[in-house]
Amino acid sequence: MTQTVDQQASAAASAADAWLSAFQQALTARDADAAAALFAGESYWRDIVSFTWNITTVEGPAEVADLLRATLDQVDPVGFRVTEEPAEADGVVTALIAFETAAGRGSGLLRLVDGKAFTLLTTLDELKGHEEPVNGRRPNGVRHGAFRDRVTWAEDRAREATELGYTVQPEVLIVGGGQGGIALGARLRQLGVPTIIIERNERPGDSWRRRYKSLALHDPVWYDHLPYLPFPASWPVFSPKDKIGDWLEMYAKVMELNYWGATTCTSAVREGDGWAVVVDRDGAEVTLRPRQLVLALGASGLPVVPDIPGRDRFRGDQHHSSAHPGPDRYKGKKAVVIGSNNSAHDICAALWEAGADVTMVQRSSTHVVRSDSLMDLGLSDLYSERALAAGVTTFKADTIFASLPFRLLPALQAPVYHAIRERDAEYYDRLEQAGFDLDFGDDDSGLFLKYLRRGSGYYIDVGASELVANGGIKLAKGQVTELTEDEVVLEDGTRLPADLVVYATGYGSMNQLASGIIGQDMADRVGKVWGLGSGTTKDPGPWEGELRNMWKPTAQEGLWFHGGNLALSRYYSLYLALQLKARMEGMPTPVYKRAEVHHTE
Amino acid sequence: MTQTVDQQASAAASAADAWLSAFQQALTARDADAAAALFAGESYWRDIVSFTWNITTVEGPAEVADLLRATLDQVDPVGFRVTEEPAEADGVVTALIAFETAAGRGSGLLRLVDGKAFTLLTTLDELKGHEEPVNGRRPNGVRHGAFRDRVTWAEDRAREATELGYTVQPEVLIVGGGQGGIALGARLRQLGVPTIIIERNERPGDSWRRRYKSLALHDPVWYDHLPYLPFPASWPVFSPKDKIGDWLEMYAKVMELNYWGATTCTSAVREGDGWAVVVDRDGAEVTLRPRQLVLALGASGLPVVPDIPGRDRFRGDQHHSSAHPGPDRYKGKKAVVIGSNNSAHDICAALWEAGADVTMVQRSSTHVVRSDSLMDLGLSDLYSERALAAGVTTFKADTIFASLPFRLLPALQAPVYHAIRERDAEYYDRLEQAGFDLDFGDDDSGLFLKYLRRGSGYYIDVGASELVANGGIKLAKGQVTELTEDEVVLEDGTRLPADLVVYATGYGSMNQLASGIIGQDMADRVGKVWGLGSGTTKDPGPWEGELRNMWKPTAQEGLWFHGGNLALSRYYSLYLALQLKARMEGMPTPVYKRAEVHHTE
Repeated sequence: MTQTVDQQASAAASAADAWLSAFQQALTARDADAAAALFAGESYWRDIVSFTWNITTVEGPAEVADLLRATLDQVDPVGFRVTEEPAEADGVVTALIAFETAAGRGSGLLRLVDGKAFTLLTTLDELKGHEEPVNGRRPNGVRHGAFRDRVTWAEDRAREATELGYTVQPEVLIVGGGQGGIALGARLRQLGVPTIIIERNERPGDSWRRRYKSLALHDPVWYDHLPYLPFPASWPVFSPKDKIGDWLEMYAKVMELNYWGATTCTSAVREGDGWAVVVDRDGAEVTLRPRQLVLALGASGLPVVPDIPGRDRFRGDQHHSSAHPGPDRYKGKKAVVIGSNNSAHDICAALWEAGADVTMVQRSSTHVVRSDSLMDLGLSDLYSERALAAGVTTFKADTIFASLPFRLLPALQAPVYHAIRERDAEYYDRLEQAGFDLDFGDDDSGLFLKYLRRGSGYYIDVGASELVANGGIKLAKGQVTELTEDEVVLEDGTRLPADLVVYATGYGSMNQLASGIIGQDMADRVGKVWGLGSGTTKDPGPWEGELRNMWKPTAQEGLWFHGGNLALSRYYSLYLALQLKARMEGMPTPVYKRAEVHHTE
Repeated sequence: MTQTVDQQASAAASAADAWLSAFQQALTARDADAAAALFAGESYWRDIVSFTWNITTVEGPAEVADLLRATLDQVDPVGFRVTEEPAEADGVVTALIAFETAAGRGSGLLRLVDGKAFTLLTTLDELKGHEEPVNGRRPNGVRHGAFRDRVTWAEDRAREATELGYTVQPEVLIVGGGQGGIALGARLRQLGVPTIIIERNERPGDSWRRRYKSLALHDPVWYDHLPYLPFPASWPVFSPKDKIGDWLEMYAKVMELNYWGATTCTSAVREGDGWAVVVDRDGAEVTLRPRQLVLALGASGLPVVPDIPGRDRFRGDQHHSSAHPGPDRYKGKKAVVIGSNNSAHDICAALWEAGADVTMVQRSSTHVVRSDSLMDLGLSDLYSERALAAGVTTFKADTIFASLPFRLLPALQAPVYHAIRERDAEYYDRLEQAGFDLDFGDDDSGLFLKYLRRGSGYYIDVGASELVANGGIKLAKGQVTELTEDEVVLEDGTRLPADLVVYATGYGSMNQLASGIIGQDMADRVGKVWGLGSGTTKDPGPWEGELRNMWKPTAQEGLWFHGGNLALSRYYSLYLALQLKARMEGMPTPVYKRAEVHHTE
């Protein structure tokens, strides 16, 4: 029997209401088993802070019951309810929800199949008594009245600038002033947590300005908004590097961040229940004593340059992709770029445009997706003008995405990439005919999974692949065995004359980068950062269920990692900031099952 | 018979649909009289650009018919329709509408009483073929593909900076880089009109930074948004001066304005069908040849200092309020502030806070309104969190406000100020008991009308009035007859000892300010700027129906005025920009009844 849309809608609403009502009843009765029985045999509950003071995915009724037994009394959840009309599609009822706990107010998303929970996401969005002063709570800005002790906003900011880090210690120190550190800094400021962000470059945005000139964001604008202050309606789809640099610079200023540029971190050691962090601030040594230390160093951290024999004798220019100045001085020269992922492609295309003779050396397969296809088929349901017009706000899109269990993501993503492969079949054929070694991820689950698992191994095509396909960029394959004075030599004996060698050979681990600050012992104790434990290339098991060490308590008290692309950084900056705020306020934050460390690197 | 809400709603919709249908029919048939007959005897049609290429209010059927006879063929309006469910209240049906013309697409607001039009607002919001590249039309940002002639965004901006004003002339030159010039500049950039903004101060926002330290915006944030990039959710209700300065500075940068700071305008003369404008750019003379010249000099232009005998012999500090450095050096000193409007009150309060002995000399009555009351009773239906929650977007609020005929505004505003007077009765009593000379505008129509008529004569109370009421700020009354070495002498013989005299005595006319650039003859020909011709104090008749010379064609071809508070500047910047764009594109822009000039000053 087919139902009308209205009937379907109200059946979905009934199902959601019934489930939430039963769930709340069990929670109120502190009956963990009854609550767990509402979950399907294969089910996933992902909690971000609200129950677990962690970022945790539990699977199946037994794990659900265990989570509840450990947390129910303290959390005291109430008010589980739908917040929008639930929808039904393909046998799945989806409902956006809200609830309250003793500590705060949260939201989330529920998926029901046959009346049982298939996925549940719960997130803590604000702390009671410490709500962000935004919208209806925004500050007055000026003290109306007449006060002999008036301090103006400008005087207040000036005083903060002289005191914070000197006579007054910050609660939080963020190392790394890229978009991650900046987004987190904005959240912390709104929550009234005194924070300093330190950045090696002089100005916010410099890490972008200093990259090769053709660089632009690969993710479209709707995906990229920073917290509180979205890009304006006039902002381009793909931000050129200097434009995003300018935005970050003005954002840091108008969001009133305490941003120390030209500042490097020398060391960080535990001191009492906090840290002693020695920094070099524009030539002057300063010791900061924050209680919490956040490393937001970015994925592009320590450049990895392979130890190839003959590098010292090569007479041309050679540098890692991160130090590539751009193509302008290589017109008519022979450029050999080692690597075949994003940087390699961008740099090869820019060199070709500048009139260089370009060869890309591909050492392993690369997953290539055309930017248009990724945007249309991969992102646009959630992040696009179309999505906005359909009422999918940025927060709603982020919520929907966060509600997809990592375990299921490969199966959910595979059809997207299958569709992409079909849509661009001719394009992929031409690439392969040119000899390019293509993949779609170990299990054909595509780009985003590659990103989550290993942060590399792909190229979002904005033009270079056409050149590879048509030979404009020449392709060579295999490992590099040595450099001569003027050649790159491959394992099959191929000799590539070169005036320039660019090592587009990636970056070391976040863990490695961190060890330069916190020391190897602590870095090893904290372990590998990023990856899911999927058992695929560069992401060894066991299964973690969440991204290792990101945005949540680590094995080192007081040490945290922030980062991710602009969307993840935006979304998780709130939840990390709330965890830090709660600690500052002395609220109890019992962590449910802090993740075990399985790998150091 | 009472109707249900639904019945009322659908009756309103029927009435609006019926009227618009009849109106469109008459327009299509080019039957001006039939269209005019749809208007009530007392009625107002305000058109912003769409029919008249002007900003014009016509009154009554005869004037409506005349407007249509003059414009119908060229405008060719079609598609008049409601865009939202109309509403009915107190016998008035209100409907938001949309329509198209040969040149573009527009919107507006219709009010019907007994089936006839009482007020109609029509605005042209975009030009066909020249739509703003925003939202779904936003630029890609980067040219995907491989192009040997690629120019990056940064290179493009750098090239523009070296060329524009030198080897390439701007279409528009805006003199004045305050919030008005900046808002208009942003609109013009989005419309692809090459524009330079020149500003005497070095950085955008400096005109705010240089003011006395306690200054903050008097209008709340929801009223103040700039085009395209609204203040974030975290922004305070009242922006401190330095914060608004920072916002303007970053806005000019991220909205990619061609902003020449440290640049003054020496002269502007007609040259061909454009201008030769000599400017001093940071010491270097540059001649600019724009086709269009916009003066956005601000209301705070030429300081007026009364010619009081003895000024030269006074031994203390004396300066106009615009040059007041702030109160810090006057602790324990005797300060006499001449004037009783906004600047006078702010400066007196700040001096009191710093421990000075303060006397305010009131020479004429002042309209005082408490900031809270103004916000709650005056603005919050349209500009507040509550309004936003009720679906009143900034554009909708601006539209509703623009749809109120100036002729009716006093009668509409009077009850608001009556309510304010009642709410704050005790406060006003105390002020009057302290001797303060209060008014509510000539016809009790309150602050906004005073603003529109004369731009002065009021104080939005953010704390000073309490000090006047309780004597913290001493009050003296009457004209100043002379200064001695150390006293201010009033006409009644009162002698006020003084170490400091601040002339909070206002500013000259915009016309006066303009004459310094375009010469007295041209300034006189163009005439008085601002004011409605209400026949009230400082706003002599005859009735203009619109603000003199603002945002529309003036008596001088190619000369325009932009400005107003942040809300007016935001709203009218679009319509002025469209008029300039249309001229740049060579589109026909026949102006219906350019306003006559009745006053020079």
